[in-house]
Amino acid sequence: MLEDVLKTIDGRRDQSIALLKEFLSIPSVSAQPDHKPDMQRCAQWLADQFRFAAMDVAVMPTKGTFDKLSAGHPAVVAKNKHQPGRPTILLYGHYDVQPPEPLEQWKTGPFEPTIRDGAIYARGAADDKGQVWAHVEAIMAWQAHGGPPINLTVIIEGEEEIGSDNLGAFFKEHRDALRADLAVISDTNQFAKGLPAITYGLRGLCYAEVFITGPSHDLHSGLFGGAVVNPANFLCEIVASLHDDKGRVTIPGFYDDVVALTETERAMWRRLPFSEDEFAKGVGLKKGTGEEGYSSIERKWARPTCDVNGITTGYQGPGAKTIIPSTASMKISMRLVPDQDPEKIQVAFEKTIRAKCGDQVQVKFVWHGASKPVLVPIDSRPMQFAAEAVEQGFGVKPTMMREGGSIPVVGLIKQALGIDTLLVGFGLPDDRVHSPNEKFDLDSLYKGTRSAAVLYQKLSQLK
Amino acid sequence: MLEDVLKTIDGRRDQSIALLKEFLSIPSVSAQPDHKPDMQRCAQWLADQFRFAAMDVAVMPTKGTFDKLSAGHPAVVAKNKHQPGRPTILLYGHYDVQPPEPLEQWKTGPFEPTIRDGAIYARGAADDKGQVWAHVEAIMAWQAHGGPPINLTVIIEGEEEIGSDNLGAFFKEHRDALRADLAVISDTNQFAKGLPAITYGLRGLCYAEVFITGPSHDLHSGLFGGAVVNPANFLCEIVASLHDDKGRVTIPGFYDDVVALTETERAMWRRLPFSEDEFAKGVGLKKGTGEEGYSSIERKWARPTCDVNGITTGYQGPGAKTIIPSTASMKISMRLVPDQDPEKIQVAFEKTIRAKCGDQVQVKFVWHGASKPVLVPIDSRPMQFAAEAVEQGFGVKPTMMREGGSIPVVGLIKQALGIDTLLVGFGLPDDRVHSPNEKFDLDSLYKGTRSAAVLYQKLSQLK
Repeated sequence: MLEDVLKTIDGRRDQSIALLKEFLSIPSVSAQPDHKPDMQRCAQWLADQFRFAAMDVAVMPTKGTFDKLSAGHPAVVAKNKHQPGRPTILLYGHYDVQPPEPLEQWKTGPFEPTIRDGAIYARGAADDKGQVWAHVEAIMAWQAHGGPPINLTVIIEGEEEIGSDNLGAFFKEHRDALRADLAVISDTNQFAKGLPAITYGLRGLCYAEVFITGPSHDLHSGLFGGAVVNPANFLCEIVASLHDDKGRVTIPGFYDDVVALTETERAMWRRLPFSEDEFAKGVGLKKGTGEEGYSSIERKWARPTCDVNGITTGYQGPGAKTIIPSTASMKISMRLVPDQDPEKIQVAFEKTIRAKCGDQVQVKFVWHGASKPVLVPIDSRPMQFAAEAVEQGFGVKPTMMREGGSIPVVGLIKQALGIDTLLVGFGLPDDRVHSPNEKFDLDSLYKGTRSAAVLYQKLSQLK
Repeated sequence: MLEDVLKTIDGRRDQSIALLKEFLSIPSVSAQPDHKPDMQRCAQWLADQFRFAAMDVAVMPTKGTFDKLSAGHPAVVAKNKHQPGRPTILLYGHYDVQPPEPLEQWKTGPFEPTIRDGAIYARGAADDKGQVWAHVEAIMAWQAHGGPPINLTVIIEGEEEIGSDNLGAFFKEHRDALRADLAVISDTNQFAKGLPAITYGLRGLCYAEVFITGPSHDLHSGLFGGAVVNPANFLCEIVASLHDDKGRVTIPGFYDDVVALTETERAMWRRLPFSEDEFAKGVGLKKGTGEEGYSSIERKWARPTCDVNGITTGYQGPGAKTIIPSTASMKISMRLVPDQDPEKIQVAFEKTIRAKCGDQVQVKFVWHGASKPVLVPIDSRPMQFAAEAVEQGFGVKPTMMREGGSIPVVGLIKQALGIDTLLVGFGLPDDRVHSPNEKFDLDSLYKGTRSAAVLYQKLSQLK
């Protein structure tokens, strides 16, 4: 049966690309109010495709405030005929895309999908329409042979690029309809061309804004300098004190819950085609920098951080102004790794900073959300299924990787629906997501479609 | 003779105030192009007063570009009949004032001089029209008795509040006409009401802008955080490293040329009515902070600093943005004390920072001017003359103080004309210069006028 499905996929390659072009030609830019009708049109177009695959489909408003411009782009929800005894898989993706600007940097229009050198160029090609499309094609192919062997619930949302603000509420409201055994997301990358990957870990995040106040108003640096605390200097001292000379974060208890890298993981990652030199050069640096005793990949994927994201203090205009600023503030975030708990880290962070401030300056904290780190055991059954599916789909054994970023929807799914997520992504690191000339390799589309088809069969053994 | 002069001053008290009111009612705001005609009018009005005192007067354009709006406010230059063998004194002041905004905070109009509680309220009352006026009145009083016993060259400029950009060139162009043995400036304060002061030291200044560049562009803090240098964190580490835990600046050689406070000075300052608690409370702090082993007055007047004046890096808008910024920059300045040399300090500063940056980040420096610290020996003859004059004028022995700020014109005079400056100021610390409701005490005007009259006689013994 699977062989027949894969043959169907082979036979539909041109048609698959033609349909993806239609999908990509709809400017579904969720952030731009002008594109609100396009969002509707895109959701309806996508719903039709699931109908062709004989699924029950609903284009569902989010938050019940769909008439508001700022939010409420609909989610497309599709289900095949669920059968008792089969495992239920929740497939998540998004049909909205980043704004295409700056337009002048595109070689061909962002919504005029164009094929060059074996890739399709358009906004959303890799993030996430192309990857969603691999699944739609896989479902269609299965449909030609009696339908996928699993209970599939597909949700393709329209607000991922603007923060998925309504998704948590949507999950909770429709919890029963969305109940599943496992979630699958294809919105991540292969490690490199020819080296597909399963992502089994994500870092979490705590993001703080810290406001320091010293003197009640800006002071003349000549008349007061040297005799009063300078909040700008003080803020710098706080930041400097957050790392030791080995690049480790000094907040007490910060590493208490960190799961150490296993020798298996480190050996696996060492075998990856990764050049420290090229990594540094790629971002304009002479060398990578970070926690002592770890490679750059280990630092990015499996070690926590404490990075300043922005500082505002004092005079920032042209020329010189001789003031001791009254206030200094920074945005500072910590990437967390399993099993660090964002809430615990927030408490430790505040306590550490407050202790440093003492009675010299006043301090205030504002927290901008938090997400937990994710780690799926490599040897779990779903991971093994995913690895086998990708190997069959791409003809290459996939590598097991982690990612340094966070995918908040993974946490939302865990929290609202109580299930884990498989991250099986088909993008490439050079796909330029969020940038001009975004692309998706046609080879990734084809092999991704195959992998998805195989994955459905593998997952049918989950129960 | 001096007794007669002082009696004339007594007799002219009301007239003196009436004329000062005229002076203050002209809105000579050098920064605001709308007031360009007022600047002209003010210069002419002032020139007339010197003519009444039988002096030769010229209203002189600066920079030869007087027709340009942005600069070129004229300087008023007046001379009495110079006689061979007499010492020549250059009296400097300025007739331009700060912008009066915010207007709604003034109890009475900034250019409607009003007397309340023994003080005259108006923009420029203390800074510097009232202090200039004390000298004009002293000259007038001397004129009634044969003229001042010294060769006087008065220059009252119109661009002090906008940086005196043309003054250096003006000094050089008119060097011969302005040649003198000593300069006198009344643009500083008494220590407190009832405690007049001579200022014998000023701090100098080096002001740098430091630009740090790490990655070639802003990076995603999830994908790169922990594995690349973060210029924002790095900048903070640089700043933190510039002080040790005793509040001393760590730049090698920074203190090499610092003239230590003498026990005489420290004892003199300890006797001043100064409360550490009130000093801190006055600026909204619980306590003063600074270099270990020094009082707040010592820190402000006689110890060098290294203060951040502003930092710009990364994301400063609302909410969260998860980036590793590509660049970080700061404005940072060092207040210098005798005999620190700005040029030497600049070199040491750059060398220290460059060493810290190594090959991790790129660094660039921009310097915004520099001024040398000033220290006039307390026991020099001009200082003794000034002290005696103020004692006679105020009826109280003046204290000898320094100031933490810089008065760039002192350096310009030294550089262009090769002479030292006596700083004999009649303002009070609560005169609110540069703020709404600026005032000048009528008592200060009267006693300042007396002090100036006595000073001219004392200085006649200079040669």
